[in-house]
Amino acid sequence: MSGDVAWLDAVQFNADGLVPVIAQDAGDQTILMMAWMNAEALSLTVETGQVVYYSRSRQRLWRKGESSGNVQQLRDMYLDCDGDVLVVSVEQIGGVACHTGRKSCFFKKLEEGSWQDTLPVLKSPSAMYGKKE
Amino acid sequence: MSGDVAWLDAVQFNADGLVPVIAQDAGDQTILMMAWMNAEALSLTVETGQVVYYSRSRQRLWRKGESSGNVQQLRDMYLDCDGDVLVVSVEQIGGVACHTGRKSCFFKKLEEGSWQDTLPVLKSPSAMYGKKE
Repeated sequence: MSGDVAWLDAVQFNADGLVPVIAQDAGDQTILMMAWMNAEALSLTVETGQVVYYSRSRQRLWRKGESSGNVQQLRDMYLDCDGDVLVVSVEQIGGVACHTGRKSCFFKKLEEGSWQDTLPVLKSPSAMYGKKE
Repeated sequence: MSGDVAWLDAVQFNADGLVPVIAQDAGDQTILMMAWMNAEALSLTVETGQVVYYSRSRQRLWRKGESSGNVQQLRDMYLDCDGDVLVVSVEQIGGVACHTGRKSCFFKKLEEGSWQDTLPVLKSPSAMYGKKE
């Protein structure tokens, strides 16, 4: 970005220095997941073209796919009217965004008063993470 | 729901008692907005079939469309793998989710280092809110 980060100033981070980020499949518009970025993760995402989040549980940068190989290639990025939520339109490498091996993390659908799994497991978590985690 | 709220127990609210909710157009899958619900807003949304958020700025329930008329009719609801983010698939009455009069709140697209408006204003904010706010 060569030091030109005026676009970054428009992003309103919360008290913890984080902004929620919705990842959407650039192809069929499926909502894949929601996670968080700090300013560094956001800058790295734009600079590298691969999505980097900030893991609140691990308290460190989280390059999506660093363990599973399921990298997210950034296609487009959108900011909302208030400047405090981002959408990243991505190409989901491997076709799996969720650590459960499903395409999307939003696979539980409310049906008649209970949550029903609606998406198939495309990859086993042990196959995705067995070697590294 | 007749007192059957087991589905509600699966939702992980944050320390403020809130959960982020992504609203998606049930028709063309456009991501319309992101807002928050507390347990009461979530229950009311499911009971009434119209989306109710919790406004953090106003610190009260916010029936989407209460001022603008741009109600969101609930079609489906999804919970993510961690149970801490919801997606509501909605029919956006009036075709406008954003208070700026645009279909979606995510109308600022990052292009060559700056945010560019990408969606037309379909309704003037003064027309939407002039009489009531």
